[in-house]
Amino acid sequence: MTVALKLAYKGTAYCGWQVQKNAKSVQETLQDAMEAVFGFRCPVTGCSRTDAGVHAKGFVCKAEGVPDGIPVSRIPEALGTKLPHDIAVTEAWEVSEDFHPRYGAKGKRYCYYIRNARVRDPFTHETSALWQKPIDATACDAICAQLVGTHDFRSFMASGSDIVDTVRTVREFSCRREGETVIFSVSADGFLYNMVRILVGTVLDIHDGTLRQSAREVLDAKDRTHAGRTMPANGLCLEEVFY
Amino acid sequence: MTVALKLAYKGTAYCGWQVQKNAKSVQETLQDAMEAVFGFRCPVTGCSRTDAGVHAKGFVCKAEGVPDGIPVSRIPEALGTKLPHDIAVTEAWEVSEDFHPRYGAKGKRYCYYIRNARVRDPFTHETSALWQKPIDATACDAICAQLVGTHDFRSFMASGSDIVDTVRTVREFSCRREGETVIFSVSADGFLYNMVRILVGTVLDIHDGTLRQSAREVLDAKDRTHAGRTMPANGLCLEEVFY
Repeated sequence: MTVALKLAYKGTAYCGWQVQKNAKSVQETLQDAMEAVFGFRCPVTGCSRTDAGVHAKGFVCKAEGVPDGIPVSRIPEALGTKLPHDIAVTEAWEVSEDFHPRYGAKGKRYCYYIRNARVRDPFTHETSALWQKPIDATACDAICAQLVGTHDFRSFMASGSDIVDTVRTVREFSCRREGETVIFSVSADGFLYNMVRILVGTVLDIHDGTLRQSAREVLDAKDRTHAGRTMPANGLCLEEVFY
Repeated sequence: MTVALKLAYKGTAYCGWQVQKNAKSVQETLQDAMEAVFGFRCPVTGCSRTDAGVHAKGFVCKAEGVPDGIPVSRIPEALGTKLPHDIAVTEAWEVSEDFHPRYGAKGKRYCYYIRNARVRDPFTHETSALWQKPIDATACDAICAQLVGTHDFRSFMASGSDIVDTVRTVREFSCRREGETVIFSVSADGFLYNMVRILVGTVLDIHDGTLRQSAREVLDAKDRTHAGRTMPANGLCLEEVFY
Protein backbone atom coordinates (compact mmCIF):
# COMPACT_ATOMS: atom_id res chain seq x y z
CA MET A 1 0.00 0.00 0.00
CA THR A 2 0.95 3.67 -0.33
CA VAL A 3 1.23 5.55 2.93
CA ALA A 4 1.67 9.23 3.81
CA LEU A 5 3.84 9.91 6.83
CA LYS A 6 4.09 13.08 8.88
CA LEU A 7 7.58 13.58 10.29
CA ALA A 8 9.10 15.76 12.97
CA TYR A 9 12.86 16.07 12.92
CA LYS A 10 15.65 18.12 14.37
CA GLY A 11 17.78 18.81 11.29
CA THR A 12 21.03 19.65 13.11
CA ALA A 13 22.75 16.38 12.26
CA TYR A 14 21.48 16.08 8.67
CA CYS A 15 22.40 17.44 5.23
CA GLY A 16 18.66 18.05 4.71
CA TRP A 17 15.82 15.83 3.51
CA GLN A 18 17.27 14.76 0.18
CA VAL A 19 19.65 11.82 -0.23
CA GLN A 20 23.20 13.03 -0.91
CA LYS A 21 26.48 11.29 -1.36
CA ASN A 22 28.81 11.37 1.66
CA ALA A 23 26.24 13.00 3.95
CA LYS A 24 23.44 11.71 6.16
CA SER A 25 19.98 12.74 4.97
CA VAL A 26 16.61 12.42 6.70
CA GLN A 27 15.25 10.54 3.69
CA GLU A 28 17.93 7.86 3.80
CA THR A 29 17.65 7.51 7.58
CA LEU A 30 13.89 7.01 7.24
CA GLN A 31 14.40 4.43 4.47
CA ASP A 32 16.88 2.54 6.67
CA ALA A 33 14.27 2.36 9.45
CA MET A 34 11.59 1.20 7.00
CA GLU A 35 13.86 -1.49 5.66
CA ALA A 36 14.51 -2.71 9.22
CA VAL A 37 10.80 -2.74 10.11
CA PHE A 38 9.13 -3.71 6.80
CA GLY A 39 11.89 -5.85 5.32
CA PHE A 40 11.66 -3.71 2.18
CA ARG A 41 13.36 -0.44 1.23
CA CYS A 42 10.31 1.67 0.28
CA PRO A 43 10.74 4.42 -2.30
CA VAL A 44 10.01 7.69 -0.50
CA THR A 45 9.01 11.11 -1.90
CA GLY A 46 9.12 14.26 0.24
CA CYS A 47 7.03 17.45 0.25
CA SER A 48 10.14 19.61 -0.18
CA ARG A 49 13.88 19.58 0.11
CA THR A 50 14.85 21.09 3.38
CA ASP A 51 18.34 22.54 3.72
CA ALA A 52 21.04 21.26 6.02
CA GLY A 53 20.26 22.13 9.64
CA VAL A 54 16.62 23.10 8.99
CA HIS A 55 13.99 21.45 11.21
CA ALA A 56 10.48 20.16 10.62
CA LYS A 57 7.43 19.55 12.77
CA GLY A 58 5.05 18.64 9.97
CA PHE A 59 7.06 17.35 7.01
CA VAL A 60 4.94 15.07 4.79
CA CYS A 61 6.27 12.27 2.64
CA LYS A 62 4.87 9.34 0.71
CA ALA A 63 6.18 5.78 1.06
CA GLU A 64 5.35 3.22 -1.62
CA GLY A 65 5.17 -0.52 -1.29
CA VAL A 66 4.52 -0.65 2.46
CA PRO A 67 3.47 -4.25 3.27
CA ASP A 68 -0.33 -4.52 3.61
CA GLY A 69 -0.16 -6.62 6.76
CA ILE A 70 0.83 -3.70 8.99
CA PRO A 71 -1.98 -1.67 10.58
CA VAL A 72 -1.38 1.93 9.44
CA SER A 73 -2.09 3.31 12.90
CA ARG A 74 0.85 1.33 14.31
CA ILE A 75 3.42 2.55 11.79
CA PRO A 76 4.56 5.63 13.81
CA GLU A 77 5.51 3.55 16.85
CA ALA A 78 6.94 0.70 14.79
CA LEU A 79 9.28 3.04 12.89
CA GLY A 80 10.08 4.84 16.15
CA THR A 81 11.84 1.72 17.41
CA LYS A 82 14.36 1.96 14.53
CA LEU A 83 14.67 5.72 14.01
CA PRO A 84 17.29 7.83 15.78
CA HIS A 85 16.08 10.21 18.49
CA ASP A 86 16.09 13.26 16.25
CA ILE A 87 13.48 11.90 13.80
CA ALA A 88 9.93 10.86 14.70
CA VAL A 89 6.98 9.72 12.60
CA THR A 90 4.01 11.45 14.20
CA GLU A 91 1.19 10.31 11.89
CA ALA A 92 0.59 7.77 9.13
CA TRP A 93 -2.41 7.36 6.84
CA GLU A 94 -3.12 5.44 3.67
CA VAL A 95 -3.19 7.48 0.44
CA SER A 96 -3.91 6.73 -3.19
CA GLU A 97 -0.96 5.98 -5.45
CA ASP A 98 -1.33 9.32 -7.24
CA PHE A 99 -0.93 11.39 -4.06
CA HIS A 100 2.11 13.63 -4.49
CA PRO A 101 3.35 15.29 -1.29
CA ARG A 102 5.10 18.08 -3.21
CA TYR A 103 2.96 18.87 -6.26
CA GLY A 104 -0.26 18.10 -4.38
CA ALA A 105 0.49 20.67 -1.65
CA LYS A 106 -1.62 23.86 -1.68
CA GLY A 107 0.88 25.60 0.52
CA LYS A 108 3.26 25.42 3.46
CA ARG A 109 3.88 27.25 6.69
CA TYR A 110 7.33 27.87 8.15
CA CYS A 111 8.32 29.46 11.43
CA TYR A 112 11.60 31.16 12.10
CA TYR A 113 12.67 31.17 15.77
CA ILE A 114 14.95 33.81 17.24
CA ARG A 115 16.34 33.93 20.75
CA ASN A 116 16.47 37.66 21.49
CA ALA A 117 18.84 37.96 24.45
CA ARG A 118 22.46 38.84 25.22
CA VAL A 119 23.41 35.27 26.06
CA ARG A 120 22.75 31.96 24.31
CA ASP A 121 20.37 29.41 25.76
CA PRO A 122 21.82 25.86 25.81
CA PHE A 123 18.34 24.35 25.49
CA THR A 124 17.25 26.15 22.32
CA HIS A 125 20.58 26.79 20.66
CA GLU A 126 20.08 24.18 17.94
CA THR A 127 16.56 25.34 17.08
CA SER A 128 16.80 29.13 17.16
CA ALA A 129 19.10 31.88 15.95
CA LEU A 130 20.61 34.28 18.50
CA TRP A 131 19.91 38.00 17.93
CA GLN A 132 21.43 40.14 20.66
CA LYS A 133 20.02 43.62 19.91
CA PRO A 134 16.47 44.18 21.26
CA ILE A 135 13.72 43.35 18.75
CA ASP A 136 10.39 45.21 18.75
CA ALA A 137 8.16 42.39 17.54
CA THR A 138 5.21 44.72 16.94
CA ALA A 139 7.34 46.94 14.68
CA CYS A 140 8.61 43.85 12.83
CA ASP A 141 5.06 42.59 12.43
CA ALA A 142 4.14 45.84 10.65
CA ILE A 143 7.09 45.41 8.27
CA CYS A 144 6.04 41.79 7.59
CA ALA A 145 2.52 42.95 6.70
CA GLN A 146 3.87 44.95 3.74
CA LEU A 147 4.97 41.70 2.07
CA VAL A 148 1.70 39.76 2.34
CA GLY A 149 -0.02 39.16 -0.99
CA THR A 150 0.78 37.96 -4.50
CA HIS A 151 4.09 39.47 -5.58
CA ASP A 152 7.25 38.77 -7.52
CA PHE A 153 9.55 37.73 -4.66
CA ARG A 154 12.73 37.70 -6.80
CA SER A 155 14.51 39.99 -4.29
CA PHE A 156 14.04 37.27 -1.66
CA MET A 157 15.52 34.39 -3.64
CA ALA A 158 19.11 33.21 -3.14
CA SER A 159 21.24 34.21 -6.11
CA GLY A 160 22.18 31.34 -8.39
CA SER A 161 18.70 29.81 -8.39
CA ASP A 162 17.40 29.05 -11.89
CA ILE A 163 13.68 29.38 -11.08
CA VAL A 164 11.93 31.46 -13.78
CA ASP A 165 8.52 32.13 -12.23
CA THR A 166 9.25 33.99 -9.00
CA VAL A 167 5.68 35.10 -8.27
CA ARG A 168 4.33 33.64 -5.05
CA THR A 169 1.33 34.32 -2.81
CA VAL A 170 2.24 34.96 0.81
CA ARG A 171 -0.96 34.44 2.79
CA GLU A 172 0.45 35.25 6.20
CA PHE A 173 3.69 36.82 7.40
CA SER A 174 3.70 37.82 11.03
CA CYS A 175 6.01 38.35 13.99
CA ARG A 176 5.28 37.87 17.67
CA ARG A 177 7.20 37.65 20.93
CA GLU A 178 6.98 34.84 23.51
CA GLY A 179 9.31 35.75 26.36
CA GLU A 180 12.85 35.86 25.02
CA THR A 181 11.76 34.15 21.80
CA VAL A 182 10.68 36.09 18.70
CA ILE A 183 8.74 33.96 16.22
CA PHE A 184 8.17 34.79 12.56
CA SER A 185 5.44 32.76 10.84
CA VAL A 186 5.13 32.68 7.03
CA SER A 187 2.61 30.76 4.98
CA ALA A 188 2.58 30.79 1.19
CA ASP A 189 1.54 28.71 -1.81
CA GLY A 190 5.22 28.09 -2.48
CA PHE A 191 8.67 29.32 -1.53
CA LEU A 192 11.75 30.33 -3.50
CA TYR A 193 15.19 29.10 -2.49
CA ASN A 194 16.11 30.53 0.97
CA MET A 195 13.04 32.78 0.80
CA VAL A 196 12.01 32.56 4.46
CA ARG A 197 15.56 33.10 5.70
CA ILE A 198 15.96 36.18 3.46
CA LEU A 199 12.49 37.53 4.33
CA VAL A 200 13.24 37.37 8.06
CA GLY A 201 16.76 38.78 7.60
CA THR A 202 15.37 41.69 5.59
CA VAL A 203 12.68 42.53 8.15
CA LEU A 204 15.29 42.48 10.94
CA ASP A 205 17.77 44.59 8.94
CA ILE A 206 15.06 47.18 8.18
CA HIS A 207 13.94 47.16 11.85
CA ASP A 208 17.56 47.61 12.93
CA GLY A 209 18.25 50.45 10.49
CA THR A 210 20.98 48.39 8.78
CA LEU A 211 18.89 48.47 5.62
CA ARG A 212 17.54 51.93 4.75
CA GLN A 213 14.70 50.90 2.45
CA SER A 214 11.11 49.89 3.08
CA ALA A 215 10.05 46.27 2.62
CA ARG A 216 7.99 47.34 -0.40
CA GLU A 217 11.00 49.05 -1.97
CA VAL A 218 13.03 45.86 -1.54
CA LEU A 219 10.18 43.86 -3.10
CA ASP A 220 9.82 46.29 -6.04
CA ALA A 221 13.58 46.22 -6.78
CA LYS A 222 13.30 42.52 -7.81
CA ASP A 223 16.98 42.23 -7.04
CA ARG A 224 18.55 40.10 -4.29
CA THR A 225 21.21 42.75 -3.56
CA HIS A 226 18.49 45.08 -2.21
CA ALA A 227 17.34 42.61 0.44
CA GLY A 228 18.90 41.90 3.83
CA ARG A 229 20.92 39.06 5.24
CA THR A 230 20.11 35.35 4.90
CA MET A 231 19.37 34.13 8.41
CA PRO A 232 21.08 30.91 9.52
CA ALA A 233 19.41 27.55 8.92
CA ASN A 234 19.06 26.54 12.59
CA GLY A 235 16.14 28.94 13.30
CA LEU A 236 13.98 27.62 10.47
CA CYS A 237 11.27 25.00 10.87
CA LEU A 238 8.71 23.61 8.40
CA GLU A 239 5.56 23.65 10.52
CA GLU A 240 2.73 22.51 8.25
CA VAL A 241 1.95 21.45 4.70
CA PHE A 242 -1.55 22.19 3.41
CA TYR A 243 -3.35 19.84 0.99
CA MET B 1 37.90 38.94 43.21
CA THR B 2 35.45 36.16 44.02
CA VAL B 3 32.49 35.85 41.68
CA ALA B 4 29.29 33.82 41.76
CA LEU B 5 28.10 32.55 38.39
CA LYS B 6 24.69 31.25 37.45
CA LEU B 7 24.88 28.58 34.74
CA ALA B 8 22.42 26.96 32.38
CA TYR B 9 23.56 23.77 30.73
CA LYS B 10 22.25 20.85 28.77
CA GLY B 11 23.92 17.94 30.50
CA THR B 12 23.56 15.38 27.70
CA ALA B 13 27.22 15.49 26.69
CA TYR B 14 28.70 15.66 30.21
CA CYS B 15 29.55 13.26 33.02
CA GLY B 16 27.94 15.79 35.39
CA TRP B 17 29.25 18.89 37.13
CA GLN B 18 32.21 17.36 38.93
CA VAL B 19 35.65 16.89 37.36
CA GLN B 20 36.29 13.22 36.57
CA LYS B 21 39.10 11.37 34.92
CA ASN B 22 38.46 10.31 31.31
CA ALA B 23 35.11 12.14 31.05
CA LYS B 24 34.10 15.69 30.17
CA SER B 25 32.57 17.59 33.10
CA VAL B 26 30.79 20.93 33.14
CA GLN B 27 33.23 22.18 35.79
CA GLU B 28 36.29 21.47 33.68
CA THR B 29 34.70 22.94 30.56
CA LEU B 30 33.90 26.13 32.49
CA GLN B 31 37.45 26.30 33.84
CA ASP B 32 38.84 25.93 30.31
CA ALA B 33 36.72 28.90 29.16
CA MET B 34 37.86 30.97 32.17
CA GLU B 35 41.47 30.20 31.46
CA ALA B 36 41.00 31.32 27.85
CA VAL B 37 39.26 34.56 28.85
CA PHE B 38 40.98 35.48 32.15
CA GLY B 39 44.40 33.98 31.47
CA PHE B 40 44.07 32.17 34.80
CA ARG B 41 42.54 28.81 35.70
CA CYS B 42 40.18 29.87 38.52
CA PRO B 43 39.33 27.36 41.26
CA VAL B 44 35.59 26.72 40.99
CA THR B 45 33.13 25.34 43.58
CA GLY B 46 29.64 24.18 42.62
CA CYS B 47 26.30 24.17 44.48
CA SER B 48 25.91 20.42 43.95
CA ARG B 49 27.17 17.51 41.94
CA THR B 50 24.73 16.85 39.15
CA ASP B 51 24.70 13.39 37.63
CA ALA B 52 25.63 12.53 34.07
CA GLY B 53 22.95 13.71 31.66
CA VAL B 54 21.15 15.94 34.19
CA HIS B 55 20.47 19.53 33.12
CA ALA B 56 20.50 22.87 34.92
CA LYS B 57 18.88 26.24 34.40
CA GLY B 58 20.06 27.87 37.61
CA PHE B 59 23.21 26.10 38.78
CA VAL B 60 25.32 28.39 41.01
CA CYS B 61 29.07 28.18 41.40
CA LYS B 62 31.82 30.30 42.85
CA ALA B 63 34.99 31.25 40.97
CA GLU B 64 38.03 32.51 42.90
CA GLY B 65 40.81 34.71 41.65
CA VAL B 66 38.90 36.36 38.81
CA PRO B 67 41.02 39.33 37.63
CA ASP B 68 39.73 42.62 39.07
CA GLY B 69 39.98 44.46 35.75
CA ILE B 70 36.94 42.74 34.23
CA PRO B 71 33.53 44.37 34.81
CA VAL B 72 31.40 41.68 36.47
CA SER B 73 28.40 42.49 34.28
CA ARG B 74 30.40 41.57 31.18
CA ILE B 75 31.54 38.15 32.40
CA PRO B 76 28.54 36.18 31.02
CA GLU B 77 29.11 37.37 27.45
CA ALA B 78 32.90 37.14 27.71
CA LEU B 79 32.76 33.49 28.84
CA GLY B 80 30.06 32.82 26.22
CA THR B 81 32.62 33.39 23.49
CA LYS B 82 34.68 30.44 24.76
CA LEU B 83 32.03 28.07 26.10
CA PRO B 84 30.44 25.34 23.97
CA HIS B 85 26.81 25.84 22.93
CA ASP B 86 25.42 23.59 25.63
CA ILE B 87 26.72 25.70 28.54
CA ALA B 88 25.85 29.36 29.19
CA VAL B 89 26.69 31.74 32.03
CA THR B 90 23.45 33.66 32.57
CA GLU B 91 24.45 35.88 35.52
CA ALA B 92 27.56 36.94 37.41
CA TRP B 93 27.87 38.91 40.63
CA GLU B 94 30.66 39.61 43.10
CA VAL B 95 30.52 37.71 46.40
CA SER B 96 32.58 37.66 49.57
CA GLU B 97 35.30 35.05 49.86
CA ASP B 98 33.33 33.08 52.45
CA PHE B 99 30.31 32.57 50.19
CA HIS B 100 29.82 28.83 49.72
CA PRO B 101 27.43 27.84 46.92
CA ARG B 102 26.74 24.43 48.46
CA TYR B 103 26.77 24.89 52.25
CA GLY B 104 25.31 28.39 51.98
CA ALA B 105 22.24 27.19 50.06
CA LYS B 106 18.91 27.19 51.96
CA GLY B 107 17.39 24.88 49.39
CA LYS B 108 17.03 23.91 45.78
CA ARG B 109 14.25 23.32 43.30
CA TYR B 110 14.32 20.65 40.61
CA CYS B 111 11.87 19.92 37.84
CA TYR B 112 11.37 16.58 36.19
CA TYR B 113 10.02 16.74 32.62
CA ILE B 114 8.05 13.91 31.05
CA ARG B 115 6.79 13.73 27.51
CA ASN B 116 3.51 11.86 27.83
CA ALA B 117 2.74 10.63 24.33
CA ARG B 118 2.97 7.48 22.23
CA VAL B 119 5.78 8.84 20.08
CA ARG B 120 9.03 10.63 20.95
CA ASP B 121 9.51 14.30 20.15
CA PRO B 122 12.86 15.02 18.45
CA PHE B 123 12.96 18.52 19.93
CA THR B 124 12.63 17.55 23.59
CA HIS B 125 14.12 14.08 23.57
CA GLU B 126 17.31 15.11 25.36
CA THR B 127 15.50 17.07 28.07
CA SER B 128 12.52 14.89 28.94
CA ALA B 129 11.72 11.25 29.61
CA LEU B 130 9.14 9.50 27.45
CA TRP B 131 6.16 7.93 29.27
CA GLN B 132 3.71 6.34 26.87
CA LYS B 133 0.76 5.43 29.13
CA PRO B 134 -1.61 8.36 29.83
CA ILE B 135 -0.78 10.30 33.01
CA ASP B 136 -3.48 11.97 35.09
CA ALA B 137 -1.46 14.92 36.39
CA THR B 138 -4.13 15.89 38.93
CA ALA B 139 -4.06 12.38 40.42
CA CYS B 140 -0.25 12.48 40.52
CA ASP B 141 -0.35 15.87 42.19
CA ALA B 142 -2.45 14.40 45.01
CA ILE B 143 0.10 11.59 45.49
CA CYS B 144 2.94 14.16 45.55
CA ALA B 145 1.13 16.12 48.28
CA GLN B 146 1.45 13.15 50.68
CA LEU B 147 5.22 13.54 50.65
CA VAL B 148 5.45 17.25 51.42
CA GLY B 149 6.91 18.03 54.85
CA THR B 150 9.80 17.05 57.09
CA HIS B 151 10.31 13.29 56.83
CA ASP B 152 12.95 10.59 56.77
CA PHE B 153 13.28 10.08 53.00
CA ARG B 154 15.48 6.96 53.25
CA SER B 155 13.09 5.02 50.96
CA PHE B 156 13.85 7.56 48.23
CA MET B 157 17.64 7.35 48.39
CA ALA B 158 19.65 5.24 45.95
CA SER B 159 21.03 2.19 47.69
CA GLY B 160 24.76 2.32 48.35
CA SER B 161 24.71 5.91 49.57
CA ASP B 162 26.50 6.38 52.91
CA ILE B 163 24.50 9.41 54.08
CA VAL B 164 23.46 8.98 57.74
CA ASP B 165 20.96 11.78 58.27
CA THR B 166 18.21 11.11 55.73
CA VAL B 167 15.67 13.59 57.12
CA ARG B 168 14.82 16.34 54.65
CA THR B 169 12.12 18.99 54.39
CA VAL B 170 10.24 18.93 51.12
CA ARG B 171 8.56 22.33 50.84
CA GLU B 172 6.82 21.70 47.54
CA PHE B 173 6.16 18.62 45.44
CA SER B 174 3.66 19.10 42.66
CA CYS B 175 2.67 17.78 39.26
CA ARG B 176 1.06 19.64 36.37
CA ARG B 177 0.41 19.12 32.68
CA GLU B 178 1.36 21.51 29.86
CA GLY B 179 0.11 19.97 26.63
CA GLU B 180 1.97 16.70 26.10
CA THR B 181 4.46 17.57 28.85
CA VAL B 182 3.97 16.56 32.47
CA ILE B 183 6.13 18.53 34.89
CA PHE B 184 6.99 17.54 38.44
CA SER B 185 8.44 20.31 40.61
CA VAL B 186 10.19 19.55 43.93
CA SER B 187 11.77 22.01 46.28
CA ALA B 188 13.54 20.97 49.48
CA ASP B 189 16.23 22.06 51.90
CA GLY B 190 18.40 19.27 50.53
CA PHE B 191 18.21 16.11 48.46
CA LEU B 192 19.46 12.57 48.94
CA TYR B 193 21.23 10.74 46.13
CA ASN B 194 18.79 10.21 43.19
CA MET B 195 15.94 11.42 45.43
CA VAL B 196 14.01 13.39 42.78
CA ARG B 197 14.28 10.61 40.22
CA ILE B 198 13.03 8.02 42.74
CA LEU B 199 10.26 10.34 44.04
CA VAL B 200 8.91 10.86 40.52
CA GLY B 201 9.27 7.17 39.60
CA THR B 202 7.40 6.18 42.76
CA VAL B 203 4.51 8.59 42.14
CA LEU B 204 4.18 7.31 38.56
CA ASP B 205 4.35 3.66 39.64
CA ILE B 206 1.64 4.24 42.27
CA HIS B 207 -0.50 6.15 39.73
CA ASP B 208 -0.06 3.31 37.24
CA GLY B 209 -0.91 0.60 39.74
CA THR B 210 2.55 -0.97 39.30
CA LEU B 211 3.21 -0.20 42.95
CA ARG B 212 0.36 -1.17 45.28
CA GLN B 213 1.25 1.00 48.24
CA SER B 214 0.42 4.58 49.17
CA ALA B 215 3.17 7.20 49.04
CA ARG B 216 2.98 7.45 52.84
CA GLU B 217 3.45 3.70 53.20
CA VAL B 218 6.54 3.87 51.00
CA LEU B 219 7.84 6.77 53.10
CA ASP B 220 7.15 4.96 56.38
CA ALA B 221 8.93 1.81 55.21
CA LYS B 222 12.29 3.68 55.18
CA ASP B 223 13.52 1.10 52.71
CA ARG B 224 14.50 1.71 49.09
CA THR B 225 12.99 -1.58 47.95
CA HIS B 226 9.49 -0.29 48.76
CA ALA B 227 9.79 2.69 46.39
CA GLY B 228 9.32 2.75 42.63
CA ARG B 229 11.68 3.02 39.70
CA THR B 230 14.52 5.54 39.36
CA MET B 231 13.55 7.76 36.43
CA PRO B 232 16.25 8.39 33.81
CA ALA B 233 18.62 11.35 34.16
CA ASN B 234 17.58 13.17 30.98
CA GLY B 235 14.26 14.46 32.41
CA LEU B 236 15.86 16.09 35.47
CA CYS B 237 16.79 19.76 35.67
CA LEU B 238 18.13 21.86 38.56
CA GLU B 239 15.94 24.94 38.28
CA GLU B 240 16.92 27.20 41.21
CA VAL B 241 19.14 27.39 44.24
CA PHE B 242 17.89 29.43 47.20
CA TYR B 243 20.25 31.43 49.44
